[in-house]
Amino acid sequence: MRIGVLTGGGDCPGLNAVIRAVVRKGIEVYGHEVLGFRNGWLGAVEDQVRPLGINDVEDILTRGGTILRSSRTNPYKIEGGVPRIKENLARHRVDALVAIGGEDTLGVAKRLTDEGLGVVGVPKTIDNDLAATDYTFGFDTAVHIATEAIDRLRTTAESHHRALVVEVMGRHAGWIALHSGLAGGANVILVPEKPFSVEKVCELVQRRFEREYAPIIVVAEGAVPEGGAEVLQTGERDAFGHVRLGGVGTWLAEEIAQRTGKESRAVVLGHTQRGGTPTAYDRVLATRFGLHAVDAVHEGDFGTMVALRGTDIVRVKLAEATAELKTVPLKRYAEAEVFFG
Amino acid sequence: MRIGVLTGGGDCPGLNAVIRAVVRKGIEVYGHEVLGFRNGWLGAVEDQVRPLGINDVEDILTRGGTILRSSRTNPYKIEGGVPRIKENLARHRVDALVAIGGEDTLGVAKRLTDEGLGVVGVPKTIDNDLAATDYTFGFDTAVHIATEAIDRLRTTAESHHRALVVEVMGRHAGWIALHSGLAGGANVILVPEKPFSVEKVCELVQRRFEREYAPIIVVAEGAVPEGGAEVLQTGERDAFGHVRLGGVGTWLAEEIAQRTGKESRAVVLGHTQRGGTPTAYDRVLATRFGLHAVDAVHEGDFGTMVALRGTDIVRVKLAEATAELKTVPLKRYAEAEVFFG
Amino acid sequence: MRIGVLTGGGDCPGLNAVIRAVVRKGIEVYGHEVLGFRNGWLGAVEDQVRPLGINDVEDILTRGGTILRSSRTNPYKIEGGVPRIKENLARHRVDALVAIGGEDTLGVAKRLTDEGLGVVGVPKTIDNDLAATDYTFGFDTAVHIATEAIDRLRTTAESHHRALVVEVMGRHAGWIALHSGLAGGANVILVPEKPFSVEKVCELVQRRFEREYAPIIVVAEGAVPEGGAEVLQTGERDAFGHVRLGGVGTWLAEEIAQRTGKESRAVVLGHTQRGGTPTAYDRVLATRFGLHAVDAVHEGDFGTMVALRGTDIVRVKLAEATAELKTVPLKRYAEAEVFFG
Amino acid sequence: MRIGVLTGGGDCPGLNAVIRAVVRKGIEVYGHEVLGFRNGWLGAVEDQVRPLGINDVEDILTRGGTILRSSRTNPYKIEGGVPRIKENLARHRVDALVAIGGEDTLGVAKRLTDEGLGVVGVPKTIDNDLAATDYTFGFDTAVHIATEAIDRLRTTAESHHRALVVEVMGRHAGWIALHSGLAGGANVILVPEKPFSVEKVCELVQRRFEREYAPIIVVAEGAVPEGGAEVLQTGERDAFGHVRLGGVGTWLAEEIAQRTGKESRAVVLGHTQRGGTPTAYDRVLATRFGLHAVDAVHEGDFGTMVALRGTDIVRVKLAEATAELKTVPLKRYAEAEVFFG
Repeated sequence: MRIGVLTGGGDCPGLNAVIRAVVRKGIEVYGHEVLGFRNGWLGAVEDQVRPLGINDVEDILTRGGTILRSSRTNPYKIEGGVPRIKENLARHRVDALVAIGGEDTLGVAKRLTDEGLGVVGVPKTIDNDLAATDYTFGFDTAVHIATEAIDRLRTTAESHHRALVVEVMGRHAGWIALHSGLAGGANVILVPEKPFSVEKVCELVQRRFEREYAPIIVVAEGAVPEGGAEVLQTGERDAFGHVRLGGVGTWLAEEIAQRTGKESRAVVLGHTQRGGTPTAYDRVLATRFGLHAVDAVHEGDFGTMVALRGTDIVRVKLAEATAELKTVPLKRYAEAEVFFG
Repeated sequence: MRIGVLTGGGDCPGLNAVIRAVVRKGIEVYGHEVLGFRNGWLGAVEDQVRPLGINDVEDILTRGGTILRSSRTNPYKIEGGVPRIKENLARHRVDALVAIGGEDTLGVAKRLTDEGLGVVGVPKTIDNDLAATDYTFGFDTAVHIATEAIDRLRTTAESHHRALVVEVMGRHAGWIALHSGLAGGANVILVPEKPFSVEKVCELVQRRFEREYAPIIVVAEGAVPEGGAEVLQTGERDAFGHVRLGGVGTWLAEEIAQRTGKESRAVVLGHTQRGGTPTAYDRVLATRFGLHAVDAVHEGDFGTMVALRGTDIVRVKLAEATAELKTVPLKRYAEAEVFFG
Repeated sequence: MRIGVLTGGGDCPGLNAVIRAVVRKGIEVYGHEVLGFRNGWLGAVEDQVRPLGINDVEDILTRGGTILRSSRTNPYKIEGGVPRIKENLARHRVDALVAIGGEDTLGVAKRLTDEGLGVVGVPKTIDNDLAATDYTFGFDTAVHIATEAIDRLRTTAESHHRALVVEVMGRHAGWIALHSGLAGGANVILVPEKPFSVEKVCELVQRRFEREYAPIIVVAEGAVPEGGAEVLQTGERDAFGHVRLGGVGTWLAEEIAQRTGKESRAVVLGHTQRGGTPTAYDRVLATRFGLHAVDAVHEGDFGTMVALRGTDIVRVKLAEATAELKTVPLKRYAEAEVFFG
Repeated sequence: MRIGVLTGGGDCPGLNAVIRAVVRKGIEVYGHEVLGFRNGWLGAVEDQVRPLGINDVEDILTRGGTILRSSRTNPYKIEGGVPRIKENLARHRVDALVAIGGEDTLGVAKRLTDEGLGVVGVPKTIDNDLAATDYTFGFDTAVHIATEAIDRLRTTAESHHRALVVEVMGRHAGWIALHSGLAGGANVILVPEKPFSVEKVCELVQRRFEREYAPIIVVAEGAVPEGGAEVLQTGERDAFGHVRLGGVGTWLAEEIAQRTGKESRAVVLGHTQRGGTPTAYDRVLATRFGLHAVDAVHEGDFGTMVALRGTDIVRVKLAEATAELKTVPLKRYAEAEVFFG
């Protein structure tokens, strides 16, 4: 059997661990061959391919990024994209694909399965917002990095009687904000799932200052204020045409400064959250995903995606897998609220 | 309501996060008072007690150890121990206890519940060997530390053509060895659940050397060789009466050196695995355990223990909770074996 | 003898280590008493004072920030500021002061010495830009944090074929950029000491892409382009009146994107660089500074500042100490240039 | 010009950074070629050689160990060793060698220089015990790792009322013990330069317990008790013929337990101290050493070694360089003593 593997979408610590597990188990246990397609679906369309042997995956377990590189290419939006994928797979006699990626990559995987290709998906979203799996790899690393930053910022804030607003990733779901906020002992946590009251935030900030401590506010990049004040998001262009660094975080820091009269600063963690060596947790999860994906391929159980349920790796249908965004449930969020103020 | 809290048994990163959550939610949400008993059940017997307010738990989230200190005292083995606990609780008008600890501490909690005291348990075992919960806090931190050590040892081993044996915690269950071995890319992982063949280990070591890489062997302190060679465990006294540092790990390193003719070294991680600041994962889990424990107390749901199931915190009966040791299932272990050699 | 101690200016990992060393050696070796003034010179003016005993400095060695808090108050700019300092010192029978701070704090220390007060200075600048000492504490920690961030960003950049611009601290001197750039293997390092050519930067970026690697550009916040393009600095207000996060770094990332047609992103490390636990190097240096400062006080050698020369701690005159900014010598910078491109 | 490079002796974080700097500056600035000899002097004798280009040193800056591997071979102890080195260098038309290593490697370098070969030395000793240079790379990393371990152990010790003895590297000089002890806030620091009184250590331990804190004792592996009690060193064989893990550290922990009646544990950090990614400090120092070594080679200034003096890299004669062991001066050690108890 010859197995193709590719990584699509934004990068995420643990991608290399999945690739390594697919290659090692595919070759050593099942005796298959493995081909890597570079740059996600783009490489499948344009025939950017390299064989992957045991030596190619030596030493990659600890490395961030992906040795196969990535792209956001959707072959269904390229004239002749899908037929060329079929040709390329046929020419290289690839029997099945392991597609590692997020909603978009897995959506393509699903459609290709419907057209008769043998695809198994491995979920990847640093935001942890996929309903079909308890956790995705990369998320623990992002939370770890954000928490370390909060730990560092706390003493600075206190030494200078300042409020510090930390903007973390999370456009549609507040998981990174919730977990890093809980782990870092933030005084306020703001998530996209629930518009926030600037007034209430300022009250909590004041109360914290009164107790002689400095407030830390963790805000997901996708959080929005109540009443719909227009806030540019990180990465959008402002009225000058400049790309903004810091959206809701910098906006909120200014609001706090104006309303409370206290010094207030924003820190935007940005790309540091998604790079570098994965945590042990993510290495284990990504490795297990890879091992189980190659099992599914070996058994010909296509159109499926591997997922974590409790402590077990299970298979779910690709169709279900991408159907639903997993947002922070208000109940779980309420648990965290006790730490407000 | 007045709630007592205590920590028993070996220490574990995350204990302070539990205490903090109990105190904050107990006081701020429910309006209860919280008393801390020092040194585990010993403090309950000897009336070592301190009130715990919001300020007492400020800044402890990130700290290892336990501000309440700990002991291994079993009040059932002390003449008059249990009656004195009852007296002390009555005198301080303590309505309920949150007991944070392992098998022994929770066993006492169960018996006290049977005698009519209101106790809620929070599980604590760095070895992650409690069947009633998916994970326990402290485990992720231990795996993180062991993995960092393996990452560091790898380059040393390769520069010197050496085999390195890393002895990690785990007397009865191999979870730390399994997870840190997977995360660190170990070539051999040995767990207490399955006696190991020294011969096979040496074969794998040789094969690894032939590929020009240096082998890393991760071994749980409770792992034993097939055929029952007598191996002293870390902490036991040798024939000279000296306490041994390094049991099966140092023994195995010598066996490998003798049988393969290659240099071989042992590293025993010891107490560094259970100290220091918890990982973000453990801080979140410990905090959630604390929040849910105080909910159970508030609702008068005594004789229960909080536990993790998937992504939810649930309550289980104390009686069940301590009934079964959770060992590494052979199936899960077999997943790891693909990386052997 | 009664010794006062205060910390002024921006915070810096290692301040608590200095305080601890002053307190411990002052009390345990010399039998003196120590008083802490809060909030820098402000506390000396407004009589915000607390006694510091051995227990007060237990556990602070590893903590960032300063237990004495800090401010940027200059008593010479406050009506009656200096006389009130004299009164307060007299009332508390303080014989001498240890003033820990940067250029401004030490400038005040010098003037107070000229007026007859007994002051010994301890230099503090995270930017390492003080000519009188080989290194200042806090610098190594800042470089460590920036280097970790660069390590993390590298794999992301490569997986996505992106240029990454990392903006680090350094308004007037490029030490943090130079050291973290060298340590992180940056492809371009830009410092305030030498205006940079955007064109040349883009050439180097292109060349790097051609070799299939992604370029990392480290830029000090005070670096400026040749020809004087107007670039807002981090913290300044833009035409809308909004505080900017990211100055030259975000500007340069946009220039690179426009000129090379490649994706380019900026990361602004900001306050994370100056908070949190100090590195071992900084703890040792700060501790030694504190020990030697209290020696100088004990010997009545006022008007001096402790400094590092090679491996020795020496004393220099406060007058000289603050006279000269230490910028990166072009020769040292040229050493680094080999790594360009 | 064709330049050979090799690494000898025990490994040390930063070796790869030196190699990278030699290769990059040698090729890109001077237009030379670079050859790597594998396994130290053994590779020069046995002609184990590989060309080193720019791509070979991509990505190695952050990696511990040495891509050239290492050995402790002394060619003067091999029949015909030196003539074969000369032959091999001649055959490959190697004009000069950069030899990176400790006392032994540099001793060989010196003798080869005397015989007319062009050699430039780069000092490497993780113990920092070379008098000719202020610091050597690898030392800061070792201190960093030991300090992190001490930070972790402190909370464990306090939660359990235990004394913890941490055995760190340092056979002949106590630099690692001194710096990590200072940085970790150890209560007792024991170095090879000064035999220690077990009685005094126990007094300090007792005093610390009385203040309700747990004592941390940092001991260099080469430290010896007064009166010459015979203590096996780590790595030596005991009376059973077993290799000992933990020498003076485990011995001392038992003595403390017996004499004070308190629980006492030993932790032996071992090989983790010398592996893994170098700190930013070590990466910068090692890179600068490499850049300056290739300058010396280019200028034909053979028989020299690069060294750090203050903030400058200088050249010293190989003859002087290895003449003297740099031990901890008693004065510097006395500075630390204030923290005793």
